[in-house]
Parts: sequence; C-alpha cells; structure tokens
Amino acid sequence: MFGPDDRLLIAVSGGKDSLALWDILLELGYDVTGFYLDLGIGGYSTRSKEASMAFAEARDAKLIVRSLAEEHGFTVPELAGLTNRVPCSGCGLNKRYEFNRAALEEGFDILVTGHNLDDEVATLLGNVLHWNMDMLARQGPVLEERLMGNAPDARVALVRKVKPLVRVAERETAAYAVIRGIDYIVEECPMVEGNVQHRYKEALTMLEESSPGTKHQMYLGFLTKAAPRLRDGLDVSELVSCATCGAPTMAPEDGRDPVCSFCRLRSLAQRRRDVGFRPRPVTARRRR
Amino acid sequence: MFGPDDRLLIAVSGGKDSLALWDILLELGYDVTGFYLDLGIGGYSTRSKEASMAFAEARDAKLIVRSLAEEHGFTVPELAGLTNRVPCSGCGLNKRYEFNRAALEEGFDILVTGHNLDDEVATLLGNVLHWNMDMLARQGPVLEERLMGNAPDARVALVRKVKPLVRVAERETAAYAVIRGIDYIVEECPMVEGNVQHRYKEALTMLEESSPGTKHQMYLGFLTKAAPRLRDGLDVSELVSCATCGAPTMAPEDGRDPVCSFCRLRSLAQRRRDVGFRPRPVTARRRR
Repeated sequence: MFGPDDRLLIAVSGGKDSLALWDILLELGYDVTGFYLDLGIGGYSTRSKEASMAFAEARDAKLIVRSLAEEHGFTVPELAGLTNRVPCSGCGLNKRYEFNRAALEEGFDILVTGHNLDDEVATLLGNVLHWNMDMLARQGPVLEERLMGNAPDARVALVRKVKPLVRVAERETAAYAVIRGIDYIVEECPMVEGNVQHRYKEALTMLEESSPGTKHQMYLGFLTKAAPRLRDGLDVSELVSCATCGAPTMAPEDGRDPVCSFCRLRSLAQRRRDVGFRPRPVTARRRR
Repeated sequence: MFGPDDRLLIAVSGGKDSLALWDILLELGYDVTGFYLDLGIGGYSTRSKEASMAFAEARDAKLIVRSLAEEHGFTVPELAGLTNRVPCSGCGLNKRYEFNRAALEEGFDILVTGHNLDDEVATLLGNVLHWNMDMLARQGPVLEERLMGNAPDARVALVRKVKPLVRVAERETAAYAVIRGIDYIVEECPMVEGNVQHRYKEALTMLEESSPGTKHQMYLGFLTKAAPRLRDGLDVSELVSCATCGAPTMAPEDGRDPVCSFCRLRSLAQRRRDVGFRPRPVTARRRR
C-alpha cells in the first residue's frame, strides 16, 4: 500500500477507525498528516473536530483542517435541503472531492482512509444488490492513482487511495482505540438514520451472528475470486477536466462541456439559494 | 422455456409454489406430469404426499410417486443422522439426483420446479456471500441439458431444468393458491430450522421492507448485468458415468473411478449402518 518514504494524508473524522489508524501509522513511524473536513453538521461536527484536534495535539501530529462552508459556501445539511437529496449522498460526494483536492494541493502521494471490514462488506453488499458492475470492478483495498493529459504534461488527477483496515472488524478498531486510550467520538452522525449502508450492516450482522466469519468470507472471497474476473471487463474512460473547477471527471457523451458531479450539485444549490428557495428542513428522521 | 409439444415433469412438494405452478401449467394445457418424492420426514412427508395426491386426483392429473426409503433404503433424517450432515444438505442432493433420474427414466424432456423469486434471490445471496463462481455462472431460470458420451452414442445425462416462477414473489404464489382454492400444505418442513437459506431470506426480507423492490432488483440485475460476464469464464468439465450407479458426475482429478456425490453419501450411510453406528438424533433444534 505504501512505504516509509511516501507522504500520507489520512482522512480523519474523530471516530474510532480513523483515529486508531492514524495512531498506528504514527507509531510505525510513517510520514502521515491528518485531514479533517468540517461538514457543518452542528454540534456533531464541532465535537468531531475537537476530538481530531486534541488527538493531533497530544501526539504533536500535523493536521490540516478545512471547512466545507468556508471552501464552498454550503454545509452538508444545507446542500441536502437545497438539492432535496439524502444527506449521506451529497456528503460522500463532498468528501471524495475535498479529500482528493486537499491531497493534490498539499502534495501528498497517497490518501489513507479508515474504512474497516464492516464498511467494505456493506458497500460490497450494496454493489451486488444493484449489480453495479463498475463499482464492483473498482472496489478493493487500493485504488490506483489516475492521470490526466498526455505525456509530458500528464499529471495526477486522482490520488492513490488505500484502506489499510479492510480486514479489521469495527469491534476490533473500537477495542484498539479503547486499549490505546484514544478519545474518539462515540456518537454517530445525527443525519445517518435511514442510511442504506446502515441497513446493509444490520443485515450482514444478522448473518454474521448465525454464521461467524460471514463478513470476512464475503469480502475476502470477493477480492480473490470475483474481483479479478470483474476487473477484466472494466471500461476505464479517459478523465477530462471539469470546465468549472478543473477537477477530473468523465467526458459527457453528448459532447457538451464536462462538469463534475460536485460542481453540478453545488451549482444547483447555488441557483436555488439565489432565487430564495426555502429548503425542506433536513432532520435525522426525514427518511426511513 | 418450453413449448406445447414438450413433455414436462414438475417436481411437487405439496406446498404452494409447486402446486400453483402445476395448476397454471394444467390450465394452460401443457403436457405436465407431477413427481412427488417421499423424503420420509414423518408426518410432514405424509401430509405433503396427501396434498399432492389430492391435487392430482381432483384435476385428473398424472402423478408419479417415489419414496427415497424404497428406492435407496434411507429417509432424509436417517441419512442426516448417519452421515452427521445438516438434513437440508443431504435432502437437496437426494432431490437433485432423484428428480433427474425420474425424468430420464420416465422419458421427460424437461424438469420444471416451483422456485420463486424469494428462493432464487436467497440462493443468489448465498452464492455471493461465498463467491461460489461456478454456482453463480450456472444460476438462472433455465439450466440447459447436458449430454454424456460422444456422437452417435451421446445421450442426455442431465435433463433440462426450468423455473417459470423466478419473477414471482412467495406472497404472490401463496395468494394465487388461495384464490384458486388449492389445498396446499402450509406447514414448513420440521427440519428446516437453522437452514442457511432461511436466514438469507430473513436478511433479504429485512432489506426488502425498507427498500421495496430489492429482491427483484438483485435477481434481475444479476441476470442482465453479472451473469453473462460470469458465464464467460465458466469451466464446463466433461461429464462421466458414476462407477456405482451410472449417473453423470465429474471425473475425479486423481484418476480414480468416478463416484457421484449421491453414491458417496449413500455408501457412507450404509457402511455406518452396517457397523451398528448409532446416529445422533436429528431434530429441528439440532443446529442454530
């Protein structure tokens, strides 16, 4: 996944997985910097930022903090309300965009995330429920960097992403964090209710309880038996620059200017805000 | 799947799915004969045989009845006890073997079963939890016949199998059976507790309840998007005759005489019975 000379950027949320992983990487002597993105989800974001900052301070570790509202003018709840989308969907898009942008701007080779076995197997279940073949072909512990442009002007457009904890269960990272005295935030994001990933986790946990090892078996079996065959047929489209922000995106098939998903979402929210659109209040109980 | 000139053999259990399907095929004027296999599971088998026979009699339909004990000397509970295997595992093997044998011996072109959407999607979930690539490549509404031997002596070794109800939910076949006044047996097999397929159904029903359409989406998405790609890589090994019973089986890699799974199971049970092995009692609560 990486070596001692790589400059790693780790996305931290203040939760057990990312702080446990950061702790491990620091202990092992890697050159790792934290990145905290403030999503503007009220007290939850405040407390998760504080946990991340306290962790960094106690270990004298480097931490970059950015705020979605300061960078782009919207918090996650505002975006969800203005665009009428499930909060988790916009949130995931924002994070992918901002993590990659921060890594590139700050000169990191590799983005590290704390996704654990439970996260990955829930994603996998979602991908097979929908038979999302592209997502299946790409799912794995390492997502290689993608270049944009042609030599000699080719540049990294999507930074390399690695997930060192994919074999480790949620309970195990929690146990590690407790043993190491890491002061992580236990509370869940208040907007998570109704999140499909949560339902997938519930279903898998039910299966795991009656057949211990189910999660491991499904995920590792996928990596060894199915993924190689699914990757064969993957159509890797060329990346182009978003006409608005310059970020990598796919060329539209209709020949129009390419605009990335992030800019499309942001511009929809901006247009609605400009005309005085009154967002539906986005609360934890909005969706089931 | 079949035409008006095909001779169909339908496997009936006395339950809603197989009797509903038999009813539909008779109504549509197909040449269809029922096949009931008595598995020897106490009163449950007695009642399911009675339901199948009453159905046939009321419609003046042809029904072939065979008994596992009479054919091979063992009931499903006896086999499970002597071989120390989960009853459902041996039962499935027995049914596959006997259904195919009956179809060939009685001169049928096609074996029809009442598997519904809930059955198929549970099987699919099991196959992706284990990434059983061969099973995935073969799973579908139609399993083509397989020949054995070379022309001009080639003969059908595995009869064509079709499942007309794969798009129809369990509740729908139950509703159809009720509306048509079909007197099916409602009770479940008493040995089913702990059956993994049941747990898969529970997990899927949980997901279906929060996202209606999940089962359809998973199964039909599999057929259209994943199955064609998985079938590409399928290694179709040649079939050979079992040295004991002549049924089709795979050639062993070590060059020994081929013996089919059914004969291996039966001979294990026979050897243990011969030496006075005392089977563990197989009850509904034996496994979790």
